[in-house]
Amino acid sequence: MLPIALDAVGGDRAPDEVIAGARAAVELGVPVMLVGPEHVVSETGLPFVVATEIIGMGDDGAQGVRRKKDSSLVRAAEAVRDGKASAMVSAGNTGATMASALLRMGRIRGVSRPAIAAPLPVPGETPTVLLDAGANAECQPEWLVQFAQMGTVFSRQRFGVVKPRVGLLSIGEEASKGSSFVKEVHHLLEGAPGVHFIGNVEGHDVATDAADVVVTDGFSGNVVLKTLEGGLEVILGVIRAGLASTPETRSAAEVLAPVLEPLFDYMEPETTGGAILLGVEGVCIIAHGRSSARAVTNAISLAKEMVSGDIVGGLRAAIAAPA
Amino acid sequence: MLPIALDAVGGDRAPDEVIAGARAAVELGVPVMLVGPEHVVSETGLPFVVATEIIGMGDDGAQGVRRKKDSSLVRAAEAVRDGKASAMVSAGNTGATMASALLRMGRIRGVSRPAIAAPLPVPGETPTVLLDAGANAECQPEWLVQFAQMGTVFSRQRFGVVKPRVGLLSIGEEASKGSSFVKEVHHLLEGAPGVHFIGNVEGHDVATDAADVVVTDGFSGNVVLKTLEGGLEVILGVIRAGLASTPETRSAAEVLAPVLEPLFDYMEPETTGGAILLGVEGVCIIAHGRSSARAVTNAISLAKEMVSGDIVGGLRAAIAAPA
Repeated sequence: MLPIALDAVGGDRAPDEVIAGARAAVELGVPVMLVGPEHVVSETGLPFVVATEIIGMGDDGAQGVRRKKDSSLVRAAEAVRDGKASAMVSAGNTGATMASALLRMGRIRGVSRPAIAAPLPVPGETPTVLLDAGANAECQPEWLVQFAQMGTVFSRQRFGVVKPRVGLLSIGEEASKGSSFVKEVHHLLEGAPGVHFIGNVEGHDVATDAADVVVTDGFSGNVVLKTLEGGLEVILGVIRAGLASTPETRSAAEVLAPVLEPLFDYMEPETTGGAILLGVEGVCIIAHGRSSARAVTNAISLAKEMVSGDIVGGLRAAIAAPA
Repeated sequence: MLPIALDAVGGDRAPDEVIAGARAAVELGVPVMLVGPEHVVSETGLPFVVATEIIGMGDDGAQGVRRKKDSSLVRAAEAVRDGKASAMVSAGNTGATMASALLRMGRIRGVSRPAIAAPLPVPGETPTVLLDAGANAECQPEWLVQFAQMGTVFSRQRFGVVKPRVGLLSIGEEASKGSSFVKEVHHLLEGAPGVHFIGNVEGHDVATDAADVVVTDGFSGNVVLKTLEGGLEVILGVIRAGLASTPETRSAAEVLAPVLEPLFDYMEPETTGGAILLGVEGVCIIAHGRSSARAVTNAISLAKEMVSGDIVGGLRAAIAAPA
């Protein structure tokens, strides 16, 4: 297997946590190639590609890619395009990661717009795949049919769901509810090839087993992802503070650790390995900006799994299937 | 004070829990008038108005109001319009509650569209007022300026925030991020009279103290509200199950009850008293569909508080202020 190109300077905790995550992945047997400035990557003992520029978290994505041709993100995407890496992984600027992948790897033939697929935790069940989680702030109705097809392929490969149930995010279960955009998408999804459409779902369904894949435009999807993440973070923070408030509660918390810790862990965004950009000609994993070493290792493992299962081939076949 | 007109047959747990909630409110000194079918309301010992029809949870809102002129919702709204009640409260069909209020009470002069304002819990802080939480699935940019003005009045009266900070929901903090709709709203909010605009906020900000009021279109707002509610419900359910799983964890949970219960309680949607429809010529409280007696009592108390503080007068003044 070709190495996975890892943006060594992407993310709030780069480069230290990113490099530590890379080392752990290598120990697990996954080949990794660091991409970044020479002084960061050359003395790690890991394979590397030098890139002199960095696209920062605050930079505009597309502009950053056009202006910084020797940036770690652009070089990582080029490594995939040129057959020197099997996938790219970054915890850096999401917009620039997408733009690098799109502009350097290109779109899968027939795909109107790539979309970010984000797994949302569902306690006790496989995660719900939400897309588009933020690649396209404004969408055409037809794009969501492709999001449904691509999300179906991803849910099947990533979580082993044989016939993923696809729901359309709306503000009422009935086909008549929602914006005119959503009503049109609903109509298009009925009978869309390769899609097991189960109708509209609502915000309270995304963290449950109501659907395996939830499609929406990139604005609403990003809002859902961040609302859920923010809400969970707030409540887990308050619970942790409550557990630590007195000697008595700390003792009680020790008893509860075996039942609560797996839950807290499951709710950590970093456990999932991150989101994936579906629709480009290569595997591109978008890890959380706050990724720790463990999150980076998980993202690399996810990349490996997507490459091994040939997700890109599966997406090509799904999009090329006769309508 | 005129009685508060309570829809006796609205909500999943009506009429029993609704009537029990009414009794508790009366005991607290708030006058209540039940509205519903004679066999439901006549033997409660509480004042009542008979309405022979019921608009069900699955009925279309506006259609229900047009067709069922003797429904509890229409009669409750008419009681407010006719000066026989000071406010209306329902845990029933949200669309029909809005339509009844809008069609019978009318809009405040100058208001383009009424909006639902929903308080989102923020542990340790005053709730964030989110609007529009679902009245308008599609919005014009100018409407959101009025939502900001109305949300400001509500945040001030309900939570005592002297100068509420208003954020615009988007998918990035920068003014350049988001859909073209959001960019236009951002521009309009800069310098809008009566609005202390602090810029864009994101999904992870709604459950925090980042803003006092968050404005958005009714589609995104409804998605945020239900995502947060659903996510919290799922995680609290799992935590409760974990606490109850063994004799040891149950003992530990007892120690933790004093620190965890207030939190669980605070996160219950029913604690807030419900949402309010802002922009109509009267107080209209939309309680949660699953409201228990306690939730109904809280909704009635909220109605009373809004009437006492003359929220409608405050909204009139804010909307009429020179631009």
